[in-house]
Amino acid sequence: MSGPLQGIRILDLTWALAGPFASMILGDLGAEVLKIEIPGEGDSTRKHGPYLQGLSSYFLSINRGKKSVTLNLKDPRGKKILLALAEKSDVLIENFRPGVMEKLGLGYEEIKKVQPQIIYAACSGFGRTGPYAQRGAYDVIIQGMAGTLSITGEPGGPPVRVGFSVADLGAGLFTAIGILAALHERRNSGKGQIVDVAMLDAQVALLENAFSRYFATGEVPGPLGTRHPVVTPFQVFPSKDGYVVIAISKDEQWERFLRALDREDLLQDERFQTNDLRTRHREVLEALLTSITRTKTTGQWIEILQAIRIPAGPLNTIDKVAEDPQIQAREMITELDHAGIGKVRVISPPIKFSRTPSRIQGSAPEVGQHTGEVLKTLVNLSEEELAVLRKDGVI
Amino acid sequence: MSGPLQGIRILDLTWALAGPFASMILGDLGAEVLKIEIPGEGDSTRKHGPYLQGLSSYFLSINRGKKSVTLNLKDPRGKKILLALAEKSDVLIENFRPGVMEKLGLGYEEIKKVQPQIIYAACSGFGRTGPYAQRGAYDVIIQGMAGTLSITGEPGGPPVRVGFSVADLGAGLFTAIGILAALHERRNSGKGQIVDVAMLDAQVALLENAFSRYFATGEVPGPLGTRHPVVTPFQVFPSKDGYVVIAISKDEQWERFLRALDREDLLQDERFQTNDLRTRHREVLEALLTSITRTKTTGQWIEILQAIRIPAGPLNTIDKVAEDPQIQAREMITELDHAGIGKVRVISPPIKFSRTPSRIQGSAPEVGQHTGEVLKTLVNLSEEELAVLRKDGVI
Repeated sequence: MSGPLQGIRILDLTWALAGPFASMILGDLGAEVLKIEIPGEGDSTRKHGPYLQGLSSYFLSINRGKKSVTLNLKDPRGKKILLALAEKSDVLIENFRPGVMEKLGLGYEEIKKVQPQIIYAACSGFGRTGPYAQRGAYDVIIQGMAGTLSITGEPGGPPVRVGFSVADLGAGLFTAIGILAALHERRNSGKGQIVDVAMLDAQVALLENAFSRYFATGEVPGPLGTRHPVVTPFQVFPSKDGYVVIAISKDEQWERFLRALDREDLLQDERFQTNDLRTRHREVLEALLTSITRTKTTGQWIEILQAIRIPAGPLNTIDKVAEDPQIQAREMITELDHAGIGKVRVISPPIKFSRTPSRIQGSAPEVGQHTGEVLKTLVNLSEEELAVLRKDGVI
Repeated sequence: MSGPLQGIRILDLTWALAGPFASMILGDLGAEVLKIEIPGEGDSTRKHGPYLQGLSSYFLSINRGKKSVTLNLKDPRGKKILLALAEKSDVLIENFRPGVMEKLGLGYEEIKKVQPQIIYAACSGFGRTGPYAQRGAYDVIIQGMAGTLSITGEPGGPPVRVGFSVADLGAGLFTAIGILAALHERRNSGKGQIVDVAMLDAQVALLENAFSRYFATGEVPGPLGTRHPVVTPFQVFPSKDGYVVIAISKDEQWERFLRALDREDLLQDERFQTNDLRTRHREVLEALLTSITRTKTTGQWIEILQAIRIPAGPLNTIDKVAEDPQIQAREMITELDHAGIGKVRVISPPIKFSRTPSRIQGSAPEVGQHTGEVLKTLVNLSEEELAVLRKDGVI
């Protein structure tokens, strides 16, 4: 064991993505994560392909290092075991629709009775309050409702989804932050509380710049291709053999950039003197720069621009990223040993601590792999009791 | 003051977006954030439009509730004051290129001498190690290098940038998590440490699903429009008057969906029986569903699908989101009083705590607004000393 959260135990009733991503982050930081799953069946994402020798790559990625404990929460005995585990835990995370835990008799009020210090984290589509609280939601629904789809894509083109589940992951990140902040506060007060995170709220929080532009001007932001709304040039340009990404945020960079292009003549062009002016005249500027960027290869441009400290880079596909020297130097890909299927590659935790490194605690569990071990240790169940519970489908 | 991080002081040397977003989150949680700015000039994003009565809406949004203290760190007196502030702080955050703080004589080793317990958080484009460590980077560069642009957009179309600065914000979120985890660990060990977060690593961490698919199959993920890579149907469909987002993740939802469409005939269609089969046959499925979704309005579809608990929603633009009843019920927009320009609307913190609510501590500061107050209180400088420092451009 290592990592800054060593000694923290998390009772994890999450499924799909937002909740499991939050508990994955906390697990990578050293917390012990007890993933509660439905006996036999498990988390529904165990059925999301593609598969590695029959196991879901989706599931394997975000459930690494967790312990799987199966429990039928509709059975009174399962519920009793859950409460016994809650008593021994610092945090409970769930991402059901609001009301589901209450219906099971496992709402915050019940959990608090056995463990008053618990941090009860609930991550749902719309949060525990408000007119939509009872609705279910998935990532793309939230990307649509929060406005993400409306600002992603080509100008005038169809809506485009962010190519990864940013509404789930954003909510997961804020949930992890909420849990850590509540744990911090608990050291002072000795008290637990509810941490309520809505995917919709979390997504809107990430769109803060689109909202602040709208509040300032009344203009409704739309999709901009690869452009930045208020910084120019800050986008993808075509090169001789592909694309190059160029990002100029400061006026002194613009000057150096023009000198490197041998276009000092543009230094005096009044349309381009400041970032705001460049943004206002971006169509003419883009056409001009495109005619220049097309004359050299991506590699040439990156070399030229890096030499003068202008941020520039390639447009990598996922395979290229995986073999990138920086990604390798940062050990951003971890190979885990999985008892059933051998080596599994996953993305490493991106937070590097100098003294208490985060470390993935192992590969993802099989359904119920740790049921016996955990229930014997934490709930003091005997082999005989476990056998009965197993026979009755409670675990 | 309220919020779970009350009593934590953050010395904030960040600028632009990733770092300021991290310190904004921690400030909303109750920490005191001392934003160190260049005398006169301040954070470069104070020049990013659009403007609200001359003030940058970009800056106002992510710097709310912070205290601005101007310091010329190249002047020995400025440096001395910075160290005196570090001595009184729990956390230092900076997002310069690695080496910049060392060059100023303010690297971790120097800070540690005056405050051994400091959490020193460094958020940079590529992190403190590896071959690219010294390079600068901005959001779109990282979206390009991490593969984000390669999986966002229309199939066969040009690359599309995620419509908000997800590479900055992702790094900011992981930085906040790293700081909170290190603060937790410090309570046990009494020791500080470095938290090193790279925008590239953080972005790759968010693309975990694209990488896990690539690792499982060897196929390089590409852009998919609004589709989900492994869940179908989970995307935007055209309606009679616009678009409707429909997300079906479980097979039992598929059954209910077909019944609601009066298309029970498709229940037996072998191409669509499971999510994996629907994903494999998605082109024919999409054509089929599109011909159906076009027959009713977005509003009709949402009503029909919500009645049977199938996640569905509209494609909102930012103005519609701002007036959404759920966003309003969750108080996701806060109106702040700004001494200079009156009311400023910003997006509220998305983490709702039941006992120690997070609360924005005020509007964004003017450059150096709190210099006198902070330096008198924390560094015991007199009015006379402040006057000299001000005259010399040190503060």
